[in-house]
Amino acid sequence: MGTYLRNAWYPAAWSRDIGRALMKRRLLEEDVVLYRTEAGTVCALEDVCPHRLMPLSLGKLEGDTIQCGYHGLTFDCSGKCVRVPGQDVIPQTARVRAYPIHENMGLAWIWMGDPAKADPSHVFDLPQYHDASWSAVEGDALEVAANYLSLADNLCDPSHVSFVHLSTLGNAQSEDIPVHFEVIPEEHKVLTWRWIIDAPAIPLFQKFGNFRGNVDRWHYYHYYAPNIAIIDFGSALTGTGAPEGKRGDCIQVFACHFLTPVDESHSIDYWLHVKNFHADEAMNRALSDQFRLAFNEDKEILEAIEVNERRLPGRRQIRLAIDGSPIRMRKMVSDMIGSEAPTESKAA
Amino acid sequence: MGTYLRNAWYPAAWSRDIGRALMKRRLLEEDVVLYRTEAGTVCALEDVCPHRLMPLSLGKLEGDTIQCGYHGLTFDCSGKCVRVPGQDVIPQTARVRAYPIHENMGLAWIWMGDPAKADPSHVFDLPQYHDASWSAVEGDALEVAANYLSLADNLCDPSHVSFVHLSTLGNAQSEDIPVHFEVIPEEHKVLTWRWIIDAPAIPLFQKFGNFRGNVDRWHYYHYYAPNIAIIDFGSALTGTGAPEGKRGDCIQVFACHFLTPVDESHSIDYWLHVKNFHADEAMNRALSDQFRLAFNEDKEILEAIEVNERRLPGRRQIRLAIDGSPIRMRKMVSDMIGSEAPTESKAA
Amino acid sequence: MGTYLRNAWYPAAWSRDIGRALMKRRLLEEDVVLYRTEAGTVCALEDVCPHRLMPLSLGKLEGDTIQCGYHGLTFDCSGKCVRVPGQDVIPQTARVRAYPIHENMGLAWIWMGDPAKADPSHVFDLPQYHDASWSAVEGDALEVAANYLSLADNLCDPSHVSFVHLSTLGNAQSEDIPVHFEVIPEEHKVLTWRWIIDAPAIPLFQKFGNFRGNVDRWHYYHYYAPNIAIIDFGSALTGTGAPEGKRGDCIQVFACHFLTPVDESHSIDYWLHVKNFHADEAMNRALSDQFRLAFNEDKEILEAIEVNERRLPGRRQIRLAIDGSPIRMRKMVSDMIGSEAPTESKAA
Repeated sequence: MGTYLRNAWYPAAWSRDIGRALMKRRLLEEDVVLYRTEAGTVCALEDVCPHRLMPLSLGKLEGDTIQCGYHGLTFDCSGKCVRVPGQDVIPQTARVRAYPIHENMGLAWIWMGDPAKADPSHVFDLPQYHDASWSAVEGDALEVAANYLSLADNLCDPSHVSFVHLSTLGNAQSEDIPVHFEVIPEEHKVLTWRWIIDAPAIPLFQKFGNFRGNVDRWHYYHYYAPNIAIIDFGSALTGTGAPEGKRGDCIQVFACHFLTPVDESHSIDYWLHVKNFHADEAMNRALSDQFRLAFNEDKEILEAIEVNERRLPGRRQIRLAIDGSPIRMRKMVSDMIGSEAPTESKAA
Repeated sequence: MGTYLRNAWYPAAWSRDIGRALMKRRLLEEDVVLYRTEAGTVCALEDVCPHRLMPLSLGKLEGDTIQCGYHGLTFDCSGKCVRVPGQDVIPQTARVRAYPIHENMGLAWIWMGDPAKADPSHVFDLPQYHDASWSAVEGDALEVAANYLSLADNLCDPSHVSFVHLSTLGNAQSEDIPVHFEVIPEEHKVLTWRWIIDAPAIPLFQKFGNFRGNVDRWHYYHYYAPNIAIIDFGSALTGTGAPEGKRGDCIQVFACHFLTPVDESHSIDYWLHVKNFHADEAMNRALSDQFRLAFNEDKEILEAIEVNERRLPGRRQIRLAIDGSPIRMRKMVSDMIGSEAPTESKAA
Repeated sequence: MGTYLRNAWYPAAWSRDIGRALMKRRLLEEDVVLYRTEAGTVCALEDVCPHRLMPLSLGKLEGDTIQCGYHGLTFDCSGKCVRVPGQDVIPQTARVRAYPIHENMGLAWIWMGDPAKADPSHVFDLPQYHDASWSAVEGDALEVAANYLSLADNLCDPSHVSFVHLSTLGNAQSEDIPVHFEVIPEEHKVLTWRWIIDAPAIPLFQKFGNFRGNVDRWHYYHYYAPNIAIIDFGSALTGTGAPEGKRGDCIQVFACHFLTPVDESHSIDYWLHVKNFHADEAMNRALSDQFRLAFNEDKEILEAIEVNERRLPGRRQIRLAIDGSPIRMRKMVSDMIGSEAPTESKAA
């Protein structure tokens, strides 16, 4: 087993994808089967029948219960066995682990730790997602063959966009502009940011904005340990006072990344964006395509790094100024994992 | 090396597939090369030249001898080296292991243990296979990515057909009918059975039988440790006395499964069926197709279980009444392996 | 890490394939990025950015420097970091390992050991390659999933051609003719040879020679430890005195094999041939096709042996007279590796 924070909410799947068909997902090295009851609530059970270890996802729904496809053992949403065909006595140990689920922002969030500690009010929320003056567009579930903390590094690091995302999110004008960061322990957050003043708009905003001159551009990377990144970035015409807080006529986007560790070297990035303007479906799709392009550039890099990290264990890495934020983020996650009691980190 | 019973006859290949072309098979983690002599007997040698470890199956036949494709070392059917090109003296150690072979029921059976103990009269035989009033139809060599004992569990378990094989061998009427079993040590056999009385015929017999009403159906699973299952199943019209032994007008089929462990997580199921009625080729083919469908349903389940067993070592499994027979079968195999002298289990 | 001789020149790539595009190669379990400067010299750096272990080959060239594709760190051909975007101070440890390169015989040769010991005058050279009365034709970079010493065995072993290369380089007449060998320590060489007197020409020379009768054929296998084989083979009409040294009217070919260990079980064979006659392009291509066919026959054998060697660790192999040369070659390589100081074998 890897080392993950168990008492945390992780996205298990897009709500849109969960229905009356059994769906299998791997999270934190555990297999989970997901389905929706007839009344519409989401059930999540360990995807292992306690009889012969058959994946329950290969069975079928009987009403709100799930029937194993090998010998017909049947379990309800709480994981309790309600039927053993061929015998009247149901063994006490015939139970499947059930996971708390809460839906928000288009996602079903799962609690992999102690169910007694699962508090749905702690599921992450971005107020603008629900604000009619903003516009939210769902993206994908991007599979990346890298540890989730390597994705997290990337999401505490505004500087890479100048080199990785030249066709979308960055441009050469920002190459040498330093980044700043701040640790906010009470929010389990590391905030990293920089401003690029009086420079051409990035390609994305050249496409979707309508700037007639240079802009002031900001990047605020809010990373909530262990697995949530909200990238607040935007631009306003230079001279209109954006750096001083006047953002009356600006483009602003929250790129949201909700990470799920699959195992030590695989992760899923559920991403979406929330922007301060409305657009038609074609434009929203075009915008998502730009993000998709950019995030696949990250994927290529992070997967190549993962290979080298495994090939070169113990290889020393040099530290640069830009690494301050990722280092503090990793320390925060590590401390949170360390503060979980060993019994908790073993599953409930 | 895994733990297999070595002093036993295992099917190595269908007789129909062995000819004058070299054929490679892996059994009990050993590679074997098979071929037929000019006179028609089957030879089986370890598929490793003792010189440079080249697979002999990449060489060629010279009459009844096999010539290595790298340096021309040549071996006869007993494994003796009869030629070393370029030198007159043949080293004493230039020998290849030879395995006893005996053909029966369309299969070439191989003895992987001490050749001195190989007794062809112990090769399994089903009398009805040779009886002109019965009809035998050969099936396939089904590769399953699971341990052979997991296949054996399945073949000591009539109850799964109610859930796994609903389109062929089972139906819902049998879901809750308990199974019985008996251990017959002198035959190295565990017999498991149940009767389903006064119920609709299973889909297979709906297709191939001609029943105008409900039937009495029997399943007798004869498992001969370590690797042979004869499933005797059939149906007769309810009220004609089948449960009391009167089977004058019934359909009866012996589904035969002859298992070969390839390695700890791969097996081959050589299957065929013998039935108490004759049919034309099209009908025989259709019947085989039904079995093929059913056995591939088992394959999917057993492979999924194999993955979970490896992923979750030590995970406790609950025991049900239906597990009595598989548990006793595994105990019997384990005792047989344990009773082999360590030197025998190492190969002759 | 495997055990390779580090202080040696290995072919890294065909010169023809190295240009202004970044090229990745693995040698001795290290990844190397290769490119040509604007002035045309070849640079070779470890393909790992010292910052986040990103492969530099995923970055881009900026003039003669290479820029990492993640954060823009930039390195010159000596491996020195010349730029860290966003900060003025370049850490002392921001260095990439650089490898000496020397081009000869159409190949870029790399020195994986202590750079201070790299002497380009020791790069292998075949004088006939540069002689206008001879004709050199480049072949391929043949990837073989086997240890390079298994390829080396094959290249110290004239006897296998009688069994492996019957359609090209050998024929049955040579099957029983013994081989001879001599160890020449001062050249790190093992020379293995045999003559086949008064026999039909081999298929290759039947195609490309013009012999009206039987020939005297020689094979001299010059193996220079650890990684170079020059196969001098040819034929002259029987009775014209070739065995006594008169080779006025003969066909003579040097088949050159320059081996690179990729890792313990993968190697690359850069091969070319140099012959004592000129031919048009079509004939040269046809000749290369014959070699390609033959070397792929070796590849099949060596890969099958590699699999068996890994599957059967510790399996004893019998030794034949023909093994004398390979055994001495391996001893020579082993002694050379042993004589490298442990610090050297760790990389410079």
